[in-house]
Order: sequence, then structure tokens, then C-alpha cells
Amino acid sequence: MRYSKLFGRTKLVAPHDSDSINARFLGQAGFVDKLAAGVYSYLPLGQLVLEKVKKIIREEMNAVGGQEILMPSLHPVEIWETTGRNRTADEILYRTKGAGDKDFVFAPSHEEAVTPLAKKYIQSYKDLPLSVYQIQTKFRNEPRAKSGILRGREFGMKDMYSFHTDEKDLDVYYEQVKKAYLKLFKRCGLNAYVVEASGGIFSDKLSHEFSVITPAGEDTIIVCKKCDTAQNLEIAEGKIHDPELPEEKELPMKTVKMERGPSIEENAAAHKVPASKILKTVVYKIMDGGLIGVVIRGDLQVNETKLSQYLKKQVRTASAEELQPFGLVPGFISPVGLPSVKGGVKHKAEVKGAEVGVKEVEHSSTDLPFIGDHSVKSVKNFVTGANKLNTDLVNVNVGRDFNLSDFTDLVTVEKGFRCPKCNSELHEEKAIEAGNIFKLGTKYSKDFDLYFTDEKGERRLVVMGCYGIGTTRLVGTIVEASHDDKGMIWPKSVAPYHVHLVPLGMDEAVRKEAEKLYHFLLGKNVAVLFDDRDETAGKKFNDADIIGIPLRVVVSSRTLKEQSVEWKLRIEKEGKLVRLEKVTGEIAAWCQA
Amino acid sequence: MRYSKLFGRTKLVAPHDSDSINARFLGQAGFVDKLAAGVYSYLPLGQLVLEKVKKIIREEMNAVGGQEILMPSLHPVEIWETTGRNRTADEILYRTKGAGDKDFVFAPSHEEAVTPLAKKYIQSYKDLPLSVYQIQTKFRNEPRAKSGILRGREFGMKDMYSFHTDEKDLDVYYEQVKKAYLKLFKRCGLNAYVVEASGGIFSDKLSHEFSVITPAGEDTIIVCKKCDTAQNLEIAEGKIHDPELPEEKELPMKTVKMERGPSIEENAAAHKVPASKILKTVVYKIMDGGLIGVVIRGDLQVNETKLSQYLKKQVRTASAEELQPFGLVPGFISPVGLPSVKGGVKHKAEVKGAEVGVKEVEHSSTDLPFIGDHSVKSVKNFVTGANKLNTDLVNVNVGRDFNLSDFTDLVTVEKGFRCPKCNSELHEEKAIEAGNIFKLGTKYSKDFDLYFTDEKGERRLVVMGCYGIGTTRLVGTIVEASHDDKGMIWPKSVAPYHVHLVPLGMDEAVRKEAEKLYHFLLGKNVAVLFDDRDETAGKKFNDADIIGIPLRVVVSSRTLKEQSVEWKLRIEKEGKLVRLEKVTGEIAAWCQA
Repeated sequence: MRYSKLFGRTKLVAPHDSDSINARFLGQAGFVDKLAAGVYSYLPLGQLVLEKVKKIIREEMNAVGGQEILMPSLHPVEIWETTGRNRTADEILYRTKGAGDKDFVFAPSHEEAVTPLAKKYIQSYKDLPLSVYQIQTKFRNEPRAKSGILRGREFGMKDMYSFHTDEKDLDVYYEQVKKAYLKLFKRCGLNAYVVEASGGIFSDKLSHEFSVITPAGEDTIIVCKKCDTAQNLEIAEGKIHDPELPEEKELPMKTVKMERGPSIEENAAAHKVPASKILKTVVYKIMDGGLIGVVIRGDLQVNETKLSQYLKKQVRTASAEELQPFGLVPGFISPVGLPSVKGGVKHKAEVKGAEVGVKEVEHSSTDLPFIGDHSVKSVKNFVTGANKLNTDLVNVNVGRDFNLSDFTDLVTVEKGFRCPKCNSELHEEKAIEAGNIFKLGTKYSKDFDLYFTDEKGERRLVVMGCYGIGTTRLVGTIVEASHDDKGMIWPKSVAPYHVHLVPLGMDEAVRKEAEKLYHFLLGKNVAVLFDDRDETAGKKFNDADIIGIPLRVVVSSRTLKEQSVEWKLRIEKEGKLVRLEKVTGEIAAWCQA
Repeated sequence: MRYSKLFGRTKLVAPHDSDSINARFLGQAGFVDKLAAGVYSYLPLGQLVLEKVKKIIREEMNAVGGQEILMPSLHPVEIWETTGRNRTADEILYRTKGAGDKDFVFAPSHEEAVTPLAKKYIQSYKDLPLSVYQIQTKFRNEPRAKSGILRGREFGMKDMYSFHTDEKDLDVYYEQVKKAYLKLFKRCGLNAYVVEASGGIFSDKLSHEFSVITPAGEDTIIVCKKCDTAQNLEIAEGKIHDPELPEEKELPMKTVKMERGPSIEENAAAHKVPASKILKTVVYKIMDGGLIGVVIRGDLQVNETKLSQYLKKQVRTASAEELQPFGLVPGFISPVGLPSVKGGVKHKAEVKGAEVGVKEVEHSSTDLPFIGDHSVKSVKNFVTGANKLNTDLVNVNVGRDFNLSDFTDLVTVEKGFRCPKCNSELHEEKAIEAGNIFKLGTKYSKDFDLYFTDEKGERRLVVMGCYGIGTTRLVGTIVEASHDDKGMIWPKSVAPYHVHLVPLGMDEAVRKEAEKLYHFLLGKNVAVLFDDRDETAGKKFNDADIIGIPLRVVVSSRTLKEQSVEWKLRIEKEGKLVRLEKVTGEIAAWCQA
């Protein structure tokens, strides 16, 4: 391709509203153009990358037995009513009315289409397992479109759906797809981590995300670089870092009165102990329930997602009004020596005028149980509040001075924790979710009565899985993961062209040699972008850098003096000279490699 | 592919609501599935055909310098307001509201997206010509979706847009694309005719349709099989067939009174002359205007499209009320001896109580001009009415007995007419419009201020063309054009598989040989559908016929006795035996051919 003829050449500056690296570089280099917030056109360079990404995805989905289909976007609203997502996904649905005043939804996902479709062809266990996928446009009315092509309102997606006789068969297939995903991300030049998703409070970890580490990521993941595993921060498990306290014996508990601030830091400073010797107590309000106290080592944070999963209920921090009836003083709460909180009459008396608080207390349990994170077992002689203002207890020991109704893992893992598998240090990284897979189970089979007849002649619900990758998002992710301050750096596998051929100056010999090389390479089926413009070396080099084609080949009077061209990989700082008689062979070999 | 594993196997019967051959066969054979009226899913076999069609289209568009892009479907309503199509195309637009209460249109076409996009990259004549295309889903709220995948509400389309410095450059490119279209239809196994489209009353024939002849076609075209050219019936030109009347001299005009019916046939029968000797007069009401009489040979039909184009106004047949003020009697109208129709006072007097009629006559011209089709010049001694009930004139001659204000081509061409170019007989055929191309001129450039700077430094409007092919419609067209009563007959170029391998019976030797052949062919990269089911020969043959893969290879104990397989092309009635040792070689050669 001659660059002078290409639709979508570089602009002098990035689009003024670029909110991310991918929006900036893809926009300035003429790969994409924004029509509206979250709605992009793909120009020839962008379309070439997108097609390469799609080809890799197709190959890997075909390799796990996926059969390609194409389902429509225009869905009669009735199928969305069947699953209830007409209501639950209401906010992100684009709706329209068609001829005959019929209501339609523009599909943001295709479970509602694929399940009734599969039902037409699945009767017996002999029809299972089955796996179908499509590469299709999705419409999602994102409240806030952002991050260039990472989170759009119209975007490309590969969505695969699998159908099985039982959970066990799904599990086997799920693992196959997991491997296929890792392979395809690798083929796209990305190092993706499989991350167990939090999956909501009622899920038993039925989904996984594929996260690519990049500073632009919206998610935080906890990575073990030795194990090559990652966890979602929300539910990550890890070995707590050692508080490095000297060995000591349990000492007698004492009450100490002093004025101090309510924070852990202020408490530790006042008592001249490290934060890890503070016994931290946080009280939560359980959704549709009462309060619960959580006790944890003072240098650690309670993980609310873990607490929610433990309780199978949403939680939030309790307010001062909610604490009052229990006689709890913020900053001085502890599970030690707490006056009985059973009954509730007392609390009512204490919260005159706080009708809402009273109502909530009455409505829920009036008991206030305390549970602990495992970390409180590792420290002796804690400092904690005495449930009275400016009064603390020191030398508090679990089991001796207080008891908890349960111990569980409630800690927020952070940098410095150690991998539960290999004990290496864990790292906290920003990441982009580049794909996800779900065990749907029988949710949609139930909704659409998708049954099969098993070997014994019995009707059973089909078990389903689904597997998504945003194709356009993947292009954006590659840019976020692979660039420098000058521009994009495309992996060879998805680069729009392999070679950027750049003649410098208008010298006749240079021009002739460049044209000759261009035609030679085309003859060898090498994908070449030929910068045939009459531009300065600086402009051409800047453009080559931002476009990011992996191999730049420069022809100039200087290189021709050496009977050579300059060969420079985008990923490297320095080029080298390659002799003219060798260059086509070397380029062809490099392309194949 | 093993047929036992394929998603979308044949059904026993066609979908109950199949309204066309393509809906029937594609539905029954598991190529497509209807989700809603005009909204289809493509199952693996259908998707394979669709991808092959798209590949051919891409290759031909690339060959004429088209650069592939991808524009979004979700269009801010503002760009449709800019062109006025928000209003003029209102009926077919799917609309939605997005975040921030913004109005969007789901694009049925992309002029509104591509023109402002091109504007961002076109500044100078050096940026022209430019041609970009996409293969994308279109949404069109068709009042009545019909004919299977031929006229859908969501469908695939290739739309290309070209940009030029002037009309001449557009003309050259337009002809290139016309040839590319004919080539790509041929590659899809279709014989398409280029048809000048009527293009509406204000157009100067700026568009062409590509029509494929099939009985299911919605359009009627006039074809010259010798010239290989076709015309849209609405505007077709042709040499009128000879009325084959004996030579005669002009005879004296006479008045004849007789009771007869008003039709041409009744008139001809009453006077014992052929219909070609009747002078037929039809009076039309001009939209926003008065009446006009059209005189034509009695065996011919007036073409209202030609009349509209002649007048540059829409027309309809005048009603009896509209004729009355002019003293015209239906069935006995003629341009001869018509009392003066100027003024209008007389007419008013005659139409007491017919207020609407009066108003229209007053509102418009009260003159009633007559024009003639060229055909009235070819006959002497016409029979015609005398503008009185049951009164006719005979031996009426143009120029002697009446004059017309103009002669022009107003005849509806039909079977039996002759080609204006080669004089061969013309044929009337039903056809499907499989593609169309338009010279848009500066319509959209004006709307979006798309200017370029020419060599002299002057700003000029860019001249545009556009070129469409429905990709899914093309799949349906191929089915309509290529099938028999048993099923589809896919051309090799777009067939989902090349070979349908059908072992018969459960004989171990047959099964073993078929498996061996299957793996051999896969090894040679032959696309094989392997009917590995335990089904009867009848069921397997019926399925093979409806699926329509071009080559069927049968392995049975009977063929194995001859050390052979049966080789049968779908297009042929009889098969032949091919010896086992030769069959893979012959199949590979046939696939390449």
C-alpha cells in the first residue's frame, strides 16, 4: 500500500478528546475515528488489525470445536422478558419500535437468541456437547463511554456458547476454552492472566476474567509473577505479611485513659506500638439484617466483598446512629467486655428521635455478633478501645479476653502479601479485562425450557457456558499494552503491515531503489506500507513511530552508499544496515519467523 | 465436518411460514433460522456461504482500489438531519435514545457517516480519487419484510463510496465498478444484467441496477438475449412490433353510431379491425397541474413512468369527474373534433354539485393538451371515439384529422418488441435486484461542505458515487437462481463444502473406506461434509439434495464391489463410478478446476 493513497493518514495532533493511550494513538495515526461517544469508525489500518485479531480468534475457537454462526442484533423484546433481563439490564439496552408497533432490543449479548435457537436443534444427548460462536456487533448503552475503544456503546465481540449434558462435561470444555483464550491472547502479543472473578455474592466463583496488565487498566489484580497466576483484588487470597514483632508472652490486661484521635494511626502513635498491634474492629450493617462486627489486625483492611460472600448478603459500614444503640463509640470499639447487646429495649431508649435507626434495629436482629479475620490469631497483647471515649485496653489477647463467633479470611490482599501457592511476594497491578468466561449452568435452559433426553430416556436441562472477547476492545488493549511515548508497537501477528518502507529525500536513485524493493516485496506477498510521500525524514520517522509497524526499512542516499538499507525493528532503539542483495530474503524470512 | 456434529441439520419439513424458495430451502436445510420477520440467524452452513460471498466481494472491491473500513450503525440523529433523510427516510429508520437522552438512528445506509469521515482526510485534489467500502449490518424498518432473506429488516451489505474531483473522473470509476460487479456476480454463479434504473422523476438516469433473472423476482426487466442487455420495464425502450397491417391509402373520415363496450377489445371487435387500428386515448391528471391526453396505438400500453419523466411531474389516470368538464366520455375519447376546452366557464356549468372537480379544474390549467406516442404515426385509417356515447369515427388520420402538441416515446415495452440496438426480439423476465450503483454527484458533499482545493487553488465540491450489494440478499438470490424441486444447487465458488461424502449402510468395510477417504480429503484441504449418520440411503440422498453441495460421493457395498465410489454432481441427474485409487486425485483436481 502506498501511504500517499491510504485513507486515514496521521494527523498533526491527537484528537482533542483522547481520554486514553489507545484513543490518542489510534486516532492520531488514522486507525479509528470517533463518530460519537463510544462509537467509532475503523479506517483501513484499524480494519486490518481488527481482521487479523478476528482471524486469530476464529482459528482458536474452531480448534476447540466452535462452529461459527451469526445471530441478529434486532431482538424482539419478548425473549428479553423471558429471561428477565429486559428489566435487570434495562439501563444498558437500546430499544426501538419497528413496523406494527413491535418492541425490539438491540442485543448487548446473545443468550436470549442462542438458547431458543439451540432448542430447535437439540433433542437428545447425541446432539451434545455443542459449541457455537459468532463475531458480531454489540450495542450497549453505557452510562459513560470511555477509554477510547476499550468501553464503547457499539463494539465488536466474539461470543461463544456451549451446551452440555452435565456440569462435568461443561467443566472439561470450560478448561479447554480457558487454554484456547490464553493461547489466542499470546498470539495477539498479550500476556493475559486468568483471574477468578468475584461473580457476585450468590455465585460460587463460576466465572473467570482474562486480565492484561497495563497502567490504563480499570481493574486491580493481585499477581504472583512466579506462579504466573492472578487474582481479582476484590476476592484475592494471600498469606498476610509478617508483622515482625518480637516474641512475647501474654501480659495482664489493663485499662488506659488518654485523649487520642480515632484512627488506627493515632491509636498506634498514642500507645507507641506498631499498627499491627492494634486490634481493629469495624462494624457493618447487613442488607436487610442487623449489624456485625469484624475484628482484624490493625495494619490490614477488611475486604467487604469477602465479608459479603461469607454472609451471602451485601454489607456497608454502619453509621454512628446505628452504632449508638449498642453503646459503641467510633474509634474505641472493641469486642472486649462489651455490655450485653441482646434484647434491644435499652437501645430503643437510647435512640430517642432517631426513628430510622430504631426501626432498623427492631426490624433486624438486635444481637451484635463479632467475627474475626485469621490475622488476629497471630499477635499477642493487642491494644484496643474499651467501648468508651478516650479509654483503651492494652495487653488484650484473643481466647483469654474475648471470644469471636467465627474466624474466616476477611483480609484485603495487598502488595507485600505472599502467594498462597508458592509463597512468593504478590504484586498489585492495574489490568484490562480482555475476555471473560462464565459457567451459566441451567439459568437460560430453564428460562427457555431447553431440555434434552438422556441415555435413559429422561428429560434433563441442558447445562450452558459462555465465553466472550471484545474484538475491538482487544485492539485497544493491544495498544495499551504495547506502545512507547512515540506511538504504538504492533506485534507482528496483528500488525496492519509487516514492513514500513521509508525512502528519504527525492533523490532519483533512492526513489528507484525503493520502488524496486516495494515491488519485490509485493511479489513475495510481504505486507508493505510504502511511504512514497515527499516529506521530511523527521515527519516520516515520526509517522512510522506512531503507526508502529514492526519493521522499518529506510532507503536513503546514505544507506545506498553502503549498498544497503537501514533495518530497524519498532521495538528496538537502533537500526542496522542490511545489504541490498540480501534484504528481500531477510525480510521474507523475518515475516515467516 | 461430520454431519452428525453439525449445528443446523435438515428438518423434515420447511418452516411453515416460508414465503419463498430461499426461505424454504435455507430454512429446511439448516442454513438460516428466522428470529422475527425479516430478522435471521445464519447457522454454520449459511455462515460459510456468507463468508465465501463476502470474500469474493472483498477481492473485487480491492481490485478496483476500494479500501476496507468499518463504520458504526449507531448514528447521532444530527447527521441525518443534515441531509434531510431523517425526514425523507423516516418510515424505514429504527430510532433509539441513548445515555444523556441523545437521539440515535440505526443506519440503513452510510452516506451520513462516510461523508463527514472523508471530510476529515480530504483537503486537496491530491487526496482524490478515493474509494472506501465496508461490509456491515444494515437496519431498515421495512413495512413488510418478505421473501426470506431477500428483503430483511436486518441484513448484511457491502457499501462502497467513491470521491472524485469531477463528474468525468466519477464516470470512469463508475464504469470500472460496473465491470467489477458483473465479475463478482459471475464468480457467485449468477448471470446479472446491468439495468438502467428509473431513478425517480428528477434523475437523469444516474443509477444502475444489477438484475438476476429468476421467477421469484420482484422486478420485471426487458432483456435482449443477443446484446446481453436489459432494461427496467418502467423505462425500457424498444422497437414496437409491426402491426402487420396491409398497405392502404387514407380514406375519408366517417362517423359511425353503434352500441359497444368501452374497452379497446370491444371497440376492435365491434368495428372488425385489429386492436392496432384503434386510436387509444388516455387522459391523465398531472400532480399539482391540469389534465393531459395521451394518444397511442390501440394494441400498446402507455408507460406512466415515461410520461412522468417527460412531464417532470407525477401523473395518475384522470377520474370520470375530472373528464366531465371537458365533455369527455370514457370509452369514446379522441383528440379529433374536440370542442374547445379553453376557458372553463362551460365546464363549470356542466359540473354542478361536483365541487371537488370544479375546484381542481379551476386550480389547474383549464386547457387540455394532447400528446402522442410515436406509434400513432405508423397506422392509417384509425378507429376512434367521437367524444359522444356510442359514436365512433373511422378512417381517422393523424395530421389530416387531428394534431398533437408533441410526439415522444410513451410506450410500455413488452415481449415481442425488438431491441433498439440489435433488432432481436426482447423478452420480459422476472428479476431480483442484486446490487445497485449510483452517481450521487454533489448531493452529500453539499450537505456536509465536503470541498477540496484543486490545482488552481480553488475550493470545489467533491463528486461522489456509491455502490451497494446486499451480502445476505446475495446468498438468497443465489438460491432463487440455482435450485431444482429437490433443493439448492450451490455453485462451487460459494458452496459451504465442495464434497458431500455419503457412506450407505453400516457395513464395516464401507464405514472404513469412507473414514479413510474423509481423512485423505481433509489432508488435501478439500472441504468435505461427511454424512456419518446411521440413516437410510433415502434420507441421506434427500438431505444431500436439499443442502446442495456440488459434488456427492457415495461409498456403498455395491460401489466397493467395483473398487469404486459413486461420483455425482448435484447439477447432473446421473452419477458415475470412479475407482478408489483415483478418487482423491480426481476430487482434488475438480476442486481446483
